[in-house]
Amino acid sequence: METNEQQIALVGLNMGGPDSLEAVEPFLLNLFSDRELIRLPLGAWLQRPLARLIAHRRARRVRPNYAAIGGSSPLLHWTTRQVAGAAERAGHRFIPFVAMRYWTPRAEETVEAIRAAGLQRAMVLSLYPHYTGATTGSSINDFQQAVERLHPQLDCRFIDRWHDWHPYQVALAARIREGLEEIPVELRWETQIVFSAHALPQSFIDRGDPYLEHVQQTVRGAMALVGDFPWRLAFQSRSGPVQWMEPDTEETIGELAREGHKALLMVPVSFVSDHIETLHEIDIEYRQLAENLGVRHFRRAPSLNDHADFLWALAALVRSHLPEGWEG
Amino acid sequence: METNEQQIALVGLNMGGPDSLEAVEPFLLNLFSDRELIRLPLGAWLQRPLARLIAHRRARRVRPNYAAIGGSSPLLHWTTRQVAGAAERAGHRFIPFVAMRYWTPRAEETVEAIRAAGLQRAMVLSLYPHYTGATTGSSINDFQQAVERLHPQLDCRFIDRWHDWHPYQVALAARIREGLEEIPVELRWETQIVFSAHALPQSFIDRGDPYLEHVQQTVRGAMALVGDFPWRLAFQSRSGPVQWMEPDTEETIGELAREGHKALLMVPVSFVSDHIETLHEIDIEYRQLAENLGVRHFRRAPSLNDHADFLWALAALVRSHLPEGWEG
Repeated sequence: METNEQQIALVGLNMGGPDSLEAVEPFLLNLFSDRELIRLPLGAWLQRPLARLIAHRRARRVRPNYAAIGGSSPLLHWTTRQVAGAAERAGHRFIPFVAMRYWTPRAEETVEAIRAAGLQRAMVLSLYPHYTGATTGSSINDFQQAVERLHPQLDCRFIDRWHDWHPYQVALAARIREGLEEIPVELRWETQIVFSAHALPQSFIDRGDPYLEHVQQTVRGAMALVGDFPWRLAFQSRSGPVQWMEPDTEETIGELAREGHKALLMVPVSFVSDHIETLHEIDIEYRQLAENLGVRHFRRAPSLNDHADFLWALAALVRSHLPEGWEG
Repeated sequence: METNEQQIALVGLNMGGPDSLEAVEPFLLNLFSDRELIRLPLGAWLQRPLARLIAHRRARRVRPNYAAIGGSSPLLHWTTRQVAGAAERAGHRFIPFVAMRYWTPRAEETVEAIRAAGLQRAMVLSLYPHYTGATTGSSINDFQQAVERLHPQLDCRFIDRWHDWHPYQVALAARIREGLEEIPVELRWETQIVFSAHALPQSFIDRGDPYLEHVQQTVRGAMALVGDFPWRLAFQSRSGPVQWMEPDTEETIGELAREGHKALLMVPVSFVSDHIETLHEIDIEYRQLAENLGVRHFRRAPSLNDHADFLWALAALVRSHLPEGWEG
């Protein structure tokens, strides 16, 4: 086994998504089995059987949604391009890897590949800019356990939050402006911007997760670059009978439509690439709702995906976290 | 004459450039006749005859350069697009106009058109981000004189410096990264970035013009977004036997080449669109010099031209300067 001391694994962490319609149910089973993400009632020993039940029922409901966006989640595609693009821009010593929490490639597979490549150092980058134990926390724990088991010599440095990283806010602002360009000039400055972040159960916020505060900081930073448009922040994708963060995105859209606003721009925040929540929930479900209520121009800002300014932002983020002695 | 109190003229000021090879000499005559830009020796009464002589000799030398870039200056094309693009993004109350200092459309013509359109308010935007009396100062004086003569009711607000406007620095940083993308990955982080601003006679700086300080602030702001690349600031386009700002761009390129650097990225600063200094001086003359001295990758960051992020930066700049009562 060859060891390369100069090289650094750049590992991007994300949740993953089903790569086929058949994968929808086992993906959801993995997701609902994670007690860091969701604590089903009745305790740990019943989590898995309950998860199986919920995944089965929910798969029936969301499989047609995946079918409508091409039969699979684009998340691995985008995450792979993001990490490769960031690695390239961070300097040629970085070798890109991806580890997904709920679908392939899982952390074990990725750590195995890092070991096989003879790498001893890793910068591990959560692709959730806003910290919560439910996503970043769970992903990092999962990755660390795989490292301890399979490649304990690997020296890992973690980047677990970057909501306030200015180049990220700059890239987000550019996407917002691209969205605004799609609204006719005479309505543009009356556009209502709706930032939509993934909802968390309110209990996560109450226990001290900085998620809400992080999202707010990102939104304020981006809007400082976009200009003095009216905007709101709302939360999408609630599921299950608990208290969720508010306001709800769907309700916010309804409210704005009923107030008579004719131009709405949705901005996905907390996601850094397209997946089912942007391509189906916003682009199909919310659009239909808004148009039924009389909104004439319902648009969504493009996701960050592999826009060059976002890849540079990630590259600079990684370089800014390089520990002493790794600069090479 | 119809008066529209809601509407605002957005007037972009720039120097202008010859629109044909025949216009090169009369354009240079206008330029060398401006005592705010150049004080030829022997006093005001000899400025015009001396300017005629210099313009004639210099036209012979630069006419082939204009021929090499298509037979005219692209400055009016870009300035028109910039002001129209900024006006559109600033809101539909803005009507775009351009006034050039040394070629058409001259300030008189523009002020006449603003009067004919029945406009009573103007936001006047210098398209030189960095203030010096030689460029912005001269352009604003010229425009104000035309207003006093032809449309004294016009209420004018001037934006005469915006070197520290963050969205402008963001747009410049994006162009720098686009330039870096053209350098092969394995050399990219060794790229020497050379910011090149138009030189002024050192006497302008000595008399208190903030030009140098403004350029430095812009460069530092942009580099904070680009990352930790090695960079230098130099000054191009000196002409005539006075003491010019230093270091000279050509000498800087020579120095870097002789030090063995293989990748150079030129970044035009103080210009916000392409003209003879980018398309000929950098892209043809300096490139040849660098390649003769062994530089393998000589690249130039694209000019800001009509990139959407720059147009948004200008729009936000204009809105941020709207006086009380003009917000409408």
